Amino acid sequence: MPSYTAPLREYRFLLKDVLDIERYSNLPGFSDAPMDLIDQVLEEGAKFCEGVLAPLNKVGDEHGCKRRDDGSVETPPGFKEAYKQFTDGGWSALSSDPNYGGQGMPHVVAMAWSEMCSSANMAFTMYPGLSHGAYAAIHHHGSDEQKQTYLPKLVSGEWTGTMNLTEPHCGTDLGMLRTKAIPQADGSYRITGQKIFISAGEHDLAPNIIHLVLARIEGAPQGTKGISLFIVPKFVLDKDGNPDTRNGVVCGKIEEKMGIHGNSTCVLNYDDATGYLVGVENKGLQGMFVMMNVARLGVGLQGLSQSEVAYQNGVAYAKDRLQGRSITGAKNPNGPADPIIVHPDIRRMLMDAKAFNEAARAFAFWTALYGDLLTNSPDEKVREKADDYMGLMTPVIKSYLTDKGYANATNCQQIFGGHGYIEEHGMSQFVRDARIAMIYEGANGIQALDLVGRKLGANGGRALFAFFKEIDEWCEANEADAELKSFTDALRSTKAQMQDGAMWLMQNGMSNFDNAGAASHDFLNLFGITALTYMWALQAKAALAAKKNGGAADPYYDTKLATGRYFLARMTPDAGAHLAKLKSGADPVMALSAEQF
Amino acid sequence: MPSYTAPLREYRFLLKDVLDIERYSNLPGFSDAPMDLIDQVLEEGAKFCEGVLAPLNKVGDEHGCKRRDDGSVETPPGFKEAYKQFTDGGWSALSSDPNYGGQGMPHVVAMAWSEMCSSANMAFTMYPGLSHGAYAAIHHHGSDEQKQTYLPKLVSGEWTGTMNLTEPHCGTDLGMLRTKAIPQADGSYRITGQKIFISAGEHDLAPNIIHLVLARIEGAPQGTKGISLFIVPKFVLDKDGNPDTRNGVVCGKIEEKMGIHGNSTCVLNYDDATGYLVGVENKGLQGMFVMMNVARLGVGLQGLSQSEVAYQNGVAYAKDRLQGRSITGAKNPNGPADPIIVHPDIRRMLMDAKAFNEAARAFAFWTALYGDLLTNSPDEKVREKADDYMGLMTPVIKSYLTDKGYANATNCQQIFGGHGYIEEHGMSQFVRDARIAMIYEGANGIQALDLVGRKLGANGGRALFAFFKEIDEWCEANEADAELKSFTDALRSTKAQMQDGAMWLMQNGMSNFDNAGAASHDFLNLFGITALTYMWALQAKAALAAKKNGGAADPYYDTKLATGRYFLARMTPDAGAHLAKLKSGADPVMALSAEQF
Repeated sequence: MPSYTAPLREYRFLLKDVLDIERYSNLPGFSDAPMDLIDQVLEEGAKFCEGVLAPLNKVGDEHGCKRRDDGSVETPPGFKEAYKQFTDGGWSALSSDPNYGGQGMPHVVAMAWSEMCSSANMAFTMYPGLSHGAYAAIHHHGSDEQKQTYLPKLVSGEWTGTMNLTEPHCGTDLGMLRTKAIPQADGSYRITGQKIFISAGEHDLAPNIIHLVLARIEGAPQGTKGISLFIVPKFVLDKDGNPDTRNGVVCGKIEEKMGIHGNSTCVLNYDDATGYLVGVENKGLQGMFVMMNVARLGVGLQGLSQSEVAYQNGVAYAKDRLQGRSITGAKNPNGPADPIIVHPDIRRMLMDAKAFNEAARAFAFWTALYGDLLTNSPDEKVREKADDYMGLMTPVIKSYLTDKGYANATNCQQIFGGHGYIEEHGMSQFVRDARIAMIYEGANGIQALDLVGRKLGANGGRALFAFFKEIDEWCEANEADAELKSFTDALRSTKAQMQDGAMWLMQNGMSNFDNAGAASHDFLNLFGITALTYMWALQAKAALAAKKNGGAADPYYDTKLATGRYFLARMTPDAGAHLAKLKSGADPVMALSAEQF
Repeated sequence: MPSYTAPLREYRFLLKDVLDIERYSNLPGFSDAPMDLIDQVLEEGAKFCEGVLAPLNKVGDEHGCKRRDDGSVETPPGFKEAYKQFTDGGWSALSSDPNYGGQGMPHVVAMAWSEMCSSANMAFTMYPGLSHGAYAAIHHHGSDEQKQTYLPKLVSGEWTGTMNLTEPHCGTDLGMLRTKAIPQADGSYRITGQKIFISAGEHDLAPNIIHLVLARIEGAPQGTKGISLFIVPKFVLDKDGNPDTRNGVVCGKIEEKMGIHGNSTCVLNYDDATGYLVGVENKGLQGMFVMMNVARLGVGLQGLSQSEVAYQNGVAYAKDRLQGRSITGAKNPNGPADPIIVHPDIRRMLMDAKAFNEAARAFAFWTALYGDLLTNSPDEKVREKADDYMGLMTPVIKSYLTDKGYANATNCQQIFGGHGYIEEHGMSQFVRDARIAMIYEGANGIQALDLVGRKLGANGGRALFAFFKEIDEWCEANEADAELKSFTDALRSTKAQMQDGAMWLMQNGMSNFDNAGAASHDFLNLFGITALTYMWALQAKAALAAKKNGGAADPYYDTKLATGRYFLARMTPDAGAHLAKLKSGADPVMALSAEQF
């Protein structure tokens, strides 16, 4: 049976020592959340994740969701009770707007909470996760009446939400969508069409589900310019706002899929369902993008979350499993064999995961903090930079963290040998669950194209140049620090390679767009490596400071520094390979005609 | 529904143009198998794989194997009939010894057959695959009587075989095994113990199963020096050699696992089962190693096979799925969108798989040909080199081909987006099936340790130096050829980096064995890249020659050359990263104490 322990010490170190969030105590959200309260919230959250959600993870994988003939869906045993505890505990409302019953905690704190939930039970966490996406879309684009009607229920978790984009013939290319909306005399619309891959699309956890649906109003332009966003409640509300008439949306099928079996991935058939326009006609895609940016950071965290829980179980197994002897001599001479953690190649896989996890978490939190600044800072320049950074970092976090999360989950499964391949130990589930995060909310290839095609050049490259400048300034400010030298040197080096890649893109991506497309994956990886090197530099500096500041006897900081040095030695060398591939350009990639494949 | 087409053109090009196997027509096996007969055999085999095995692949995944209460096991619907067709067609006997009913075809031809079977249906193919392992062990180590009794039935496929190594507490470390064998007055043994993860351990395909079992004879030394190998038939034979009494071995459980559901992975409980010693007491591990070397090449092919079938389905989907527009302008202006094969990042994933598959196949076949020379060459020097190469290349083929096979299957699944994550299209199965190949027959980390710890230094490094010399000589012989220059240059470069890594290992691996362990994975990858670069050089030379020799109008050769150039541009850069990681040594890997994880 796999286990999970929330990395509370990591959260504390990041929030307090690395990000120093107490400096923002003058801002909304932060003012109500001093560090000791945050600690308390995360400790309570950890108990819930470890004690309630984690034990249901394997149950959800084994039982999956069952669709009954009437289209209703049964979630796995225990999910309903856990969801009630989840909402009773107020967890649904953590970072939501206090105007609608939310607790208004900083987004960066919600990230920690979200990571631990996903580590404990990714499929379960998607139910409230999707609600938060629906909340965000209505919060940004809904009318006052819509906000009053739906947000309190979504914030409390009494109802859940979904995002309906994909149709059988279109996923990435939403311009092709066919679901139609016909205006009615009362201002509502009749929605008809089929949506697929709808996570949490139907279930028995809540009495109502608020579907956010993209559809084309009759007569609207073709392509992405004719798409509108609608609220389609499973039960249309009566005049008091209570669920009343069953709406014309039913689950036609639950998909059989590789993982996240505990979440109901539905085909939803809309047949003259009553819907309400959110925001402006034909501007629905913008409304959905709000949900998608929130969701993409969350999906990046899912990648990290599976890497983290797989790592924890890999460590436990590697300490426990006796097999073979250390090649440098027996380390457990009185036992029948040594624990396999003595073997360097087992270490390599564990250290790859550990060194990634700690920097990936820092990167996600560091970015989420800009999300808080974007919302809360009174300083326009700060908000501008925060917006720039959120846009620039989001595709990298979504894509890099999920690719590596899957790779690390696979490596940690490998540590179990044959015992990792059978379902008993839960390692297969971590890999299978992690796999979806590379695909949904914009497949990772789309993220890479978004990065090189839109984010790099936005506002004349302002965001990218600011990031380079920030790194340069950090290196200058710290170059006298001998203890940090290996980190400063590595950061200079990875940043130089990333800059070299960016220069190549500027010189070659405009003359032949295929050069940009062919380079996108490798540039995104170069970016990821550079960002994580920066995060290690920040963490190393904080660890060294903490050691000097009374923490010298605490092994935590030496562990932190050693883990960072592993990253420098073993994970930064990939930057050179990515740069060389990037610079080889589009020709090798595009050389064949379609027939030649 | 996924589909599969055997790459017959690739086989022909490799066997005829690259490996020129006709030059061995004076050798046993080859003399009876002229190229046109081989073509014919592979064409017939392709029909069987495409028409019979491939359609059952998904069936096997969905149904799995079912254990009845009496311990008998039901294979998926259709497997029994397909197995009958398999044996009726003589496919079981393809490369086996004619003295026992085999067809004596060269091993290199059996590799092609094995690849296509595994692509079509990996779980099914494991049943005859394990029989072949049992065949090999008895063929090498059994008594004449044992050979006469068991080999004809294993060769014909009338009975199947298994390999029983793993026990709950030991897999890699067989020295700990506890299954015991008690000698009986009649020369047989009573075998008692539990074996786990036994592929094809119990089923309804054949009336008898010949288990090859490692056990410790009562009173034998502890550790690996006290392990003997036994034949334990499911039904003990009567005096005419027919299955008679049910032996004391039963399937206690079928494992729930990530993939290869169509193969019954059994817990086998031995309770005073009658067994017969194979070879010499306490030398059982050597007998098993014969089976394992055969099996390891086969497992490497499994990695390739899943990469190949996933690639084929990825190509079909990429040509069919309309989504978005080419960034360089619409390529399908009259359709609603372009096929996604226009997108560079889709190309990248397809080309990664294609460039790998074609070189990995060449590497496996090139090595298998040394297996044939080892068996059949009258020249002692040739046999020595063949033995050296088989030993050196086997761990690389097992490990590199399965790691990359999984990565490519994952990438080709990615091309399908959400449709790859649901089970409907079969892409998830390719990934899940491919995953086991990295684990069984010696986990990939063990292969890497075998490579650096045993194979590199064997006979003073004779095998490795021969490989380096062969590459140097090839580069010298071809350096005047301008058309080959990019291949020659790349081969020189990857070989130099591999040699650099080998030198570092020699200088640092002996003084601290952990340096060797920490470097093993990266050295194996350096080796894999170098070997595949060499294979691309050989293929490019053959393609250029074929073009000049009447093939100029055949697009096959230009496709081959373009694919090779992709490998040089996009896949050789990883060599530098592996070398840098390798040279960072054991310190970063081993820095933490077990408690610090």
